[in-house]
Amino acid sequence: MALVVAKFGGTSVASPERIQNVAKRLISIKQQGNDVVAVVSAMGKTTDELVGLAAALNEHPSPREMDMLLSTGEQVSMSLLAMAINARGYRAASFTGWQAGIITDDRNGVAKIVEVNAQRVRDKLAAGAICVVAGFQGISESKEITTLGRGGSDTTAVALAWGLNADVCEIYSDVDGVYSADPRVAPRARKLEQVSYDDMLELASAGAGVLQSRAVELARKFHVVIHSRSSFTDAPGTLIKEADPSMEQAVITGIAHDTSEVKITIRDLDDTPGIASQVFSALAGNNVNVDMIIQNTSEDGHTDISFTFPKGDLDRAQDAVRRLIPKIGARDYVLNENIAKVSIVGTGMKSTPGVSARAFGALAENKVNILMISTSPIRLSVVIDADQVDLAVRCLHTTFGLDSDSVYEEKALSAEELAAKAAKGR
Amino acid sequence: MALVVAKFGGTSVASPERIQNVAKRLISIKQQGNDVVAVVSAMGKTTDELVGLAAALNEHPSPREMDMLLSTGEQVSMSLLAMAINARGYRAASFTGWQAGIITDDRNGVAKIVEVNAQRVRDKLAAGAICVVAGFQGISESKEITTLGRGGSDTTAVALAWGLNADVCEIYSDVDGVYSADPRVAPRARKLEQVSYDDMLELASAGAGVLQSRAVELARKFHVVIHSRSSFTDAPGTLIKEADPSMEQAVITGIAHDTSEVKITIRDLDDTPGIASQVFSALAGNNVNVDMIIQNTSEDGHTDISFTFPKGDLDRAQDAVRRLIPKIGARDYVLNENIAKVSIVGTGMKSTPGVSARAFGALAENKVNILMISTSPIRLSVVIDADQVDLAVRCLHTTFGLDSDSVYEEKALSAEELAAKAAKGR
Repeated sequence: MALVVAKFGGTSVASPERIQNVAKRLISIKQQGNDVVAVVSAMGKTTDELVGLAAALNEHPSPREMDMLLSTGEQVSMSLLAMAINARGYRAASFTGWQAGIITDDRNGVAKIVEVNAQRVRDKLAAGAICVVAGFQGISESKEITTLGRGGSDTTAVALAWGLNADVCEIYSDVDGVYSADPRVAPRARKLEQVSYDDMLELASAGAGVLQSRAVELARKFHVVIHSRSSFTDAPGTLIKEADPSMEQAVITGIAHDTSEVKITIRDLDDTPGIASQVFSALAGNNVNVDMIIQNTSEDGHTDISFTFPKGDLDRAQDAVRRLIPKIGARDYVLNENIAKVSIVGTGMKSTPGVSARAFGALAENKVNILMISTSPIRLSVVIDADQVDLAVRCLHTTFGLDSDSVYEEKALSAEELAAKAAKGR
Repeated sequence: MALVVAKFGGTSVASPERIQNVAKRLISIKQQGNDVVAVVSAMGKTTDELVGLAAALNEHPSPREMDMLLSTGEQVSMSLLAMAINARGYRAASFTGWQAGIITDDRNGVAKIVEVNAQRVRDKLAAGAICVVAGFQGISESKEITTLGRGGSDTTAVALAWGLNADVCEIYSDVDGVYSADPRVAPRARKLEQVSYDDMLELASAGAGVLQSRAVELARKFHVVIHSRSSFTDAPGTLIKEADPSMEQAVITGIAHDTSEVKITIRDLDDTPGIASQVFSALAGNNVNVDMIIQNTSEDGHTDISFTFPKGDLDRAQDAVRRLIPKIGARDYVLNENIAKVSIVGTGMKSTPGVSARAFGALAENKVNILMISTSPIRLSVVIDADQVDLAVRCLHTTFGLDSDSVYEEKALSAEELAAKAAKGR
C-alpha cells in the first residue's frame, strides 16, 4: 500500500462537475489500495473575484488581511471535494492549512513553509479517510493565517508529501507530462518518462510552464518524487526525481522557449566602474525582475548594456531607465518587445563538449539571428526575434536528436516551411 | 473610555459600499474614545450560494464539512471590513472564530459556545486597533471549525461582549429598536427605551424578529447589556437589560404577532392515557417544532387535540399525523393554514390581575374569534384567524395604553376601519 499525495489546480475544481471528476479519480486511487491525500487550489476564478472585492475597498490592502481573505478560496473547494467524496460512499475529511500543520514563516502573501506537522491528516488516513488539504496556505508561529504566493499549491503538495513520507506527489494539470519541447510548437516533441530535478528546474525557469520552480526545488531538497500528469487521462505522465546514475543520459533533455520577456538596450554609457551596479540597483529598486544581461564595450570607451525582463515589469523598467539615463551619461535606450528566449537544457551538457557549437550551427543554417546568449552548466539560452521562435525550437529539437517518430499535430510544418513562412511574414 | 462590541448582519455588509458604511460607523465610535470590536455575518447571499454549491455535490453533506464551507463567509466579510477601516487610516485586525477564542462544543452546525478566550483580541485593542471578529463560528476542543446555527452572529457578539467585559453589545439591523408592536401593523407603536431580558425573550419567541432569543438568553445569563439599533441612523435604539427595580413598570411591554405558523387538529382520539405522548413523540421524531397545544375532551370519552407549528414543518407534520391516525384510533385531521398568533407580553402581568379578562374583552368587542389560548407568567397568546391579525394587534395595543401620540404611517387605519376591511374581505 502506497501513500499518494495528489494536487489539483483551480481549473480542475472550477465547477461542481469538475469536483465530481476529481472525487472519482481520488476514489479510484484509494480503490487501488492506496492512502490518498488531495491538495486543492481555489475554484477557478475565485481568487480573482476576492482580489476584486479587496481592490474595491483598499488600494493597498494589508498582506495580513489579504491572506485572511484569499485563504477562504481553498477552504471552499476542499470542503466541497470532501462532500463529493462522501456522496460516493467514501470517508473524507478536509483540512485548512493550519489544521494540516503547514507551518510557515510570518511573511504574509509570500510565506515559506518551515515545518509540516501533519498528525491530524495521518490520524484520518489511519481511520480510512481520503484527506483533502487546502493548498497555498499555512499558519505562522504567531497563529496568523499565511499564504505561500505564486506556485503555492504545488509547494503545499510537495511539502505534505515530504511531511507524510508519501511515495509520490502527483501533480495533475491539463497537460499530460513534461515534453522535450512544447508540442504546440514542435509537433515531434516527445513526452519524457522522467526528468532530473536539475533539468526540470532549468526547463521551468526557461519557460516550460508545467511545474512551479519553487515546488521542484523543494522536491529536490527533500527527495520527493513528483509525477506530473493529466487530469483527463489515466496515462502515466513524467516523473521528476533524482537523475538515475545507472542509465546513460541523453545530452539534451529538452528545448524550452519563453515569449513573455522584452529587452531594453541602454546605449553609450560611460564605461566606468560601478555603472552596471548603478543600472541594476535602480532596476531592482523598481521591482524589475531582470533575466539576461549583456554588456558590449567599444574601443572608444563607450558601452551598451542590454537586459531582458518580464513584459509585466515594462512600465517600472522604463521609469527606472528614464531616470537613470541623465545620471549615468547614457545617450538613450531602445526597447524591443518582439523577442523570444529559446533554451537547450540537459544535465548531459556538462560532460559533452560542442553543444553550443552544434546549436549555433543549426540556428545559423536556418538563418536565425542570435541577439543574446547566456549559459549555465546545464543550459544554453539564446534570445532571438519572436517571429523565429517556432523555427528555432524545431531545428534545435531535430539537431539534438529529440524528434519522436509520431507527430503531435497533422498540420505540422517542416523547418523549411516555417523558415519560408517567417521570411514571408516580415 | 468604554469598550463597545458592535454586530452587523449580512445585509449591512452585502456590498463594498455597505462595508464602507460600517467602517465609517466603527471609526466614529472609535473617535468618540471607545475601544471597538465588530462582529460580522457573511455578506448578503453568500451563505445561500455556498449551500447551493454543497447541494450540487451531496444531498446530505456532513455537518463538519458544511461548517468548513460556511465559515468562509464571515472570513471574507471580516477581512474586507478590516481593509476598509485601514483604507481610512485606522488600524484594524480581523479574527476568525478560532483566532478570537470562541470555544464551542463539538456539535457541528448547532454548536454552543462553552468558553471565550479573547486574549488576541484584547492585545490588538490595547495596540489601538479596531478588531473585527467573524460571527457565527467557533472552534471545538478537538480544533474542528464549528458554526453556531440560527442566531449565531448575535450570539457571538454577546459572548464576546461578556468575554471582553464590554460595556455594551450593540446589535445593528435595519430597524431602530424594539417597538411595543410591529409599526407596520400598529402605526401608533412606540419605540421602547429599554426592555427587560425576560420580556425580550417572550417578545422574540412570540414573533418580534429584532433579536434572536438565543442571544438574549446568553445576555441574560451573563448580564450583557444589548443595544438594538439601526445601521442607518445615529438615534439611540432600545436597551435590553435587567429590569430596573427603581422604576414602576408598565403592565404590558408590547404586543407581538406571528403569522408563520399553521394549525392541525386531530379529531376523535380515544381519551386514554398516553395518547398525547404518542402524538407528540411522533411529531418530535419527525422534527416538527410544536408551539401551542390544546386538548378538548367530550363527555363521551372522545378527544380533539390541536397544535400549531411553523409552516416549514408542514410536510413532515402531515406525514407523521397520517401514520398516527390509524394507530391511535382517531377519525381524521383538519389543517388550518390561515392562522395568526398574537401575544401580550409584560413582566408587570405577574403582579396585575385581570390582564386576560381585559384582552379577551377587547378582542370580543372587535369580533375577533379566539381559536386557542396559551399563557406564561408574563405572556398571554391567542391564536386567531390570520385575516384579523392587524385588527387584534391594534385593539390590544390601544387597550393596554401603549399607543403613541404620533403615528408611524400616514395611511394608518383605525381599528374600526380595519374591522370593516376584514369583514369585507371574507
